[in-house]
Amino acid sequence: MIISMKPRATRQEIEQVFQRIEEFGYKVHSIEGEERVVIGVVGVGDVTACLESVEAMPQVEKAVRISAPYKFVSREFRPQRSQIVVDGVEIGGDEFVVMAGPCSVESEEQIMRSAEAVARAGAKLLRGGAFKPRTSPYDFQGLEVEGLRLLAQAREATGLGIVTEVMTDRDVDLVAEYADLLQVGARNMQNFALLKTLGRCGRPVLLKRGLSSTIKELLMSAEYIVAHGNPNVILCERGIRTFETATRNTCDIAGVAALNELTHLPVIVDPSHATGKRSLVPALSRAAVAVGADGLIVEAHPCPEKAISDGAQSLELQQFAAMMRELAPWISLWRQTRMTQAAATV
Amino acid sequence: MIISMKPRATRQEIEQVFQRIEEFGYKVHSIEGEERVVIGVVGVGDVTACLESVEAMPQVEKAVRISAPYKFVSREFRPQRSQIVVDGVEIGGDEFVVMAGPCSVESEEQIMRSAEAVARAGAKLLRGGAFKPRTSPYDFQGLEVEGLRLLAQAREATGLGIVTEVMTDRDVDLVAEYADLLQVGARNMQNFALLKTLGRCGRPVLLKRGLSSTIKELLMSAEYIVAHGNPNVILCERGIRTFETATRNTCDIAGVAALNELTHLPVIVDPSHATGKRSLVPALSRAAVAVGADGLIVEAHPCPEKAISDGAQSLELQQFAAMMRELAPWISLWRQTRMTQAAATV
Amino acid sequence: MIISMKPRATRQEIEQVFQRIEEFGYKVHSIEGEERVVIGVVGVGDVTACLESVEAMPQVEKAVRISAPYKFVSREFRPQRSQIVVDGVEIGGDEFVVMAGPCSVESEEQIMRSAEAVARAGAKLLRGGAFKPRTSPYDFQGLEVEGLRLLAQAREATGLGIVTEVMTDRDVDLVAEYADLLQVGARNMQNFALLKTLGRCGRPVLLKRGLSSTIKELLMSAEYIVAHGNPNVILCERGIRTFETATRNTCDIAGVAALNELTHLPVIVDPSHATGKRSLVPALSRAAVAVGADGLIVEAHPCPEKAISDGAQSLELQQFAAMMRELAPWISLWRQTRMTQAAATV
Amino acid sequence: MIISMKPRATRQEIEQVFQRIEEFGYKVHSIEGEERVVIGVVGVGDVTACLESVEAMPQVEKAVRISAPYKFVSREFRPQRSQIVVDGVEIGGDEFVVMAGPCSVESEEQIMRSAEAVARAGAKLLRGGAFKPRTSPYDFQGLEVEGLRLLAQAREATGLGIVTEVMTDRDVDLVAEYADLLQVGARNMQNFALLKTLGRCGRPVLLKRGLSSTIKELLMSAEYIVAHGNPNVILCERGIRTFETATRNTCDIAGVAALNELTHLPVIVDPSHATGKRSLVPALSRAAVAVGADGLIVEAHPCPEKAISDGAQSLELQQFAAMMRELAPWISLWRQTRMTQAAATV
Repeated sequence: MIISMKPRATRQEIEQVFQRIEEFGYKVHSIEGEERVVIGVVGVGDVTACLESVEAMPQVEKAVRISAPYKFVSREFRPQRSQIVVDGVEIGGDEFVVMAGPCSVESEEQIMRSAEAVARAGAKLLRGGAFKPRTSPYDFQGLEVEGLRLLAQAREATGLGIVTEVMTDRDVDLVAEYADLLQVGARNMQNFALLKTLGRCGRPVLLKRGLSSTIKELLMSAEYIVAHGNPNVILCERGIRTFETATRNTCDIAGVAALNELTHLPVIVDPSHATGKRSLVPALSRAAVAVGADGLIVEAHPCPEKAISDGAQSLELQQFAAMMRELAPWISLWRQTRMTQAAATV
Repeated sequence: MIISMKPRATRQEIEQVFQRIEEFGYKVHSIEGEERVVIGVVGVGDVTACLESVEAMPQVEKAVRISAPYKFVSREFRPQRSQIVVDGVEIGGDEFVVMAGPCSVESEEQIMRSAEAVARAGAKLLRGGAFKPRTSPYDFQGLEVEGLRLLAQAREATGLGIVTEVMTDRDVDLVAEYADLLQVGARNMQNFALLKTLGRCGRPVLLKRGLSSTIKELLMSAEYIVAHGNPNVILCERGIRTFETATRNTCDIAGVAALNELTHLPVIVDPSHATGKRSLVPALSRAAVAVGADGLIVEAHPCPEKAISDGAQSLELQQFAAMMRELAPWISLWRQTRMTQAAATV
Repeated sequence: MIISMKPRATRQEIEQVFQRIEEFGYKVHSIEGEERVVIGVVGVGDVTACLESVEAMPQVEKAVRISAPYKFVSREFRPQRSQIVVDGVEIGGDEFVVMAGPCSVESEEQIMRSAEAVARAGAKLLRGGAFKPRTSPYDFQGLEVEGLRLLAQAREATGLGIVTEVMTDRDVDLVAEYADLLQVGARNMQNFALLKTLGRCGRPVLLKRGLSSTIKELLMSAEYIVAHGNPNVILCERGIRTFETATRNTCDIAGVAALNELTHLPVIVDPSHATGKRSLVPALSRAAVAVGADGLIVEAHPCPEKAISDGAQSLELQQFAAMMRELAPWISLWRQTRMTQAAATV
Repeated sequence: MIISMKPRATRQEIEQVFQRIEEFGYKVHSIEGEERVVIGVVGVGDVTACLESVEAMPQVEKAVRISAPYKFVSREFRPQRSQIVVDGVEIGGDEFVVMAGPCSVESEEQIMRSAEAVARAGAKLLRGGAFKPRTSPYDFQGLEVEGLRLLAQAREATGLGIVTEVMTDRDVDLVAEYADLLQVGARNMQNFALLKTLGRCGRPVLLKRGLSSTIKELLMSAEYIVAHGNPNVILCERGIRTFETATRNTCDIAGVAALNELTHLPVIVDPSHATGKRSLVPALSRAAVAVGADGLIVEAHPCPEKAISDGAQSLELQQFAAMMRELAPWISLWRQTRMTQAAATV
């Protein structure tokens, strides 16, 4: 941590800052500039408490953190990529993994048709919401337990592992009974009670980036889950909220590359929520492959215009299959690139 | 709802849209322009499901909602302001209500000193966090139940009602035992499980606007609580996330005026989180009074530089008292303005 | 400036950074932490070039500037407020100054009626666009020179000084012939050719904050004008672009208070562009008074619904007069506050 | 255009809106809903003036534009892609075009070495700033005319066409003498005086998206240039400003795909400004290829750490060459995809 004092800070005020830092057990190095004094703080452990305390002192201008506030999820802690295994499918390794399915589970026929079609097209996991976070209290809130049962039935029939959202810590055990991968939605990325419970749930977690969360906050939320006992976290870029309205959200594709530098955890992209528009999903999916994501989570529905939610961004099942065919050569290139990188690292 | 078709939509595609709308029980009015067909949808009730379905149809360019997607919280539903009574204090009426206290409850001495000082300075409710949402898993997470007990003790001693945060639906009953006003934090504004439970909790709720939530979304979240049975909701503007970094957040002060047009619910301002900087709190508090907010929630602490959290934005207790004295003439003007408005409405 | 090296930087890489810094004539202080080396750079003058150079070196993690990159406009350079005199009216002093008038000059009758009405209501300067920046090439682009002549005629008749926009460095001399205060629009805040020319124009400048410019960038743009010879710059907060759409822009009212700490230049608020909605202008104007702005610039038009531009945010002339009456007691309080502050400073 | 009246609008107020619309020469269709009246406006031409006028009328709740406010640049006006030829190089056709070079022209040696290296690596145009827009008045502002001469010399030696920025309408003729492609920087995207002059300059224009400009505004700015006589406009996505700070800007990669649907103009990506970080440039470049951009503009410098500007985001010349080699198979796939699309369209 680095602290800069205001130009008119007195010697006494500076000494008080020194003292406070030492109370926290850190060492002080001061740099006397022509205009102001700058203080370096050296030591081990998280400096947040010390930083907040010093920031509140008189004549302190700024306190800047140098080291990252997360540990277990960082590349410094673990330089090589993590692979997370979900129902036998490895994510973060040498295969690009596509998860697909409808926004919500609506009926047996709908989820079964979807599951069969996306499996045939090459998806490895089935997505589908049983508990739905909806902005309006008057919108469809999901089939809940019945939805979970239908997902289990679809797994039975197709062998696809299940990814589905859990909305509250109260439901973690219930959802974990049925799902292979528990999704934390964007609106819950900082629901810390939920994150802590997921740390103890024994299932891999898919953590979606919040609408206006920074990459650092996303990593801090992942750190919550890991620090509470669950190392199996997959991150998901699904678009952030900006001033642009031509797309539903703005996909931070370079953020995926930045995450690959900062963390060993796998990162996937959700092109459906990122764009909100079916016609843009294939192009963005190609970009996600090229940027080096570990997979995709895509909305596909037998009849998007009859979907209860998110129809405009869902691909029809045949469109999904066509996209998978078009993606194939891009995914081959992805695999070569990953192999080359792996070889270079060794 | 208004739907515009793409210019090259065929007659058949247009007819399909008509049919879909009628399946939802609405009436259709079409306008044949030179370039495209525009379709008006007339009917009662929420059109979300219909809108989402139509948006997903081929050749539909755009579907725009005309009426607001919320009802109970709107000024159209209830033209006169609502007053919410919290432990005998009326919010939304003729008095400007200040809530104050430390970010977190840290110790008996700290909360008692804070409570006495803010009461003496004119605050009507005591704030203090027992359960703390923290970005890092390694930061202080609050004294939890012990914190609630200390708040109750401070109420006993000072007569101030208590406002404190509840972070998960699991804790609603527990927190409601101790608190007079249950706060939903910014990160939980769209924690729908929590909102639903608060709808049934029998206590007034203070709903903070999410970091990147629109005014419409804030009203939809309030609608959740009201629609589930609890009409006593107070809204709080606490700054939104933008590109600006000179302040912690950007206070949407005009949004308070906009809310006053859209809803009958009271709206207060949190100048501490909005700025993140103690020295800016008095100026922003004056602005909140002037814009027509119903009150403030302010962080004040006996020794901000020893605060466990948010020290940089907390006022010292004497600073808080000084600010309250300076605010007094502004609040007088506020009262006159409100009286004049009330007289004009009658 | 503070530089942090990556944890695995070698001694040689660190030495190269030292050398580079010394080539720029600065002194180096290094702090050897357990994980990484942090380097403090001490010296006089702007460090931007050095910072950019070092940032590009291998194993450098982050380079952070400590001192502000502007000088003449800072409070450190000049601790007391600047007063700028525009056609005999002092801005930044003991009077709250209101500028008002139509968005565009449209006709002799329109501008004369506007000028007379706003003067009668208490405005001290007349605004009106002769050159209009319009997003669409097909929209009205202003009466240009004819508009300037009409403004001069209105000044003749009413005694009001004129504030009007200049859009390109080519037009500075022409506009300066007619205007008392030259406005730089939000879209031109970083039109550096224009800023440089205004540095030599001999007229005060009203610099509007860009739609997505930070406070620091606003001050840097002001520094351009001052550094090129013109100390008479007034800043204007007119709302920034965010995700919120309930208002046209988001007024950064706390930013006005932050500017008052950082700079000695006067700061005014434009409630018309900030909200885009006539009904919100009075409330936001009160907030601007309360937060401590030095004045307002408000759109008022004889018949907003026939205005060629910005009708929805323009007040009718009677509405403007009513607002000025309502503002009067708030402005009295503003004056008392300012006097008290001035007395406290002495 | 669609207008919705407030629920309590009277018959007379509605009639006044009808009348106003008819004054503008449009036809009216009204839809009488249970709660409110909605009015459709039908006619040819730009409705902006009418929309702004109606929006300002009493009891009008909202006025929404249906058709795009731009024409010449739209896909509806010209369904097939435009190819723009710059010094013999076709952009928007069957070749993916890379432009590269240093941020600023600094010296003869620097620009000659850069030009030779990027040409050898496969770049088709040379970038380099002679006039530099800098946030600080104290930063290097470019070699100006001397820089243009050095660029011309580099063209002579290597055969690469030149792309360089023009900052003010005053300089357009001068820059056009030397450059093959005139760049409008992000800060000037809405410098309308500059755009108009470029409409008459007889050279192709590279229009960079503003830091906080929407896709619609980018297209409107392109429309300015085209409507003033110059159809040769290339668009450039270079990252927008958001709350995220891990990268310098946020690259709106899905916006490139959205632009491909909305306009026939070519779109390229600037991965250097979008990320601000050299190590992220290759990954983002691959994403740009995959999403279907028409090319890249990349910063490359013989010695980034000695660059006067933007060193941290510039590739060394060998890194650039390595990136071009790695991109080759991705560009092959790009070419196949484009051919397939072209075949499908015929």
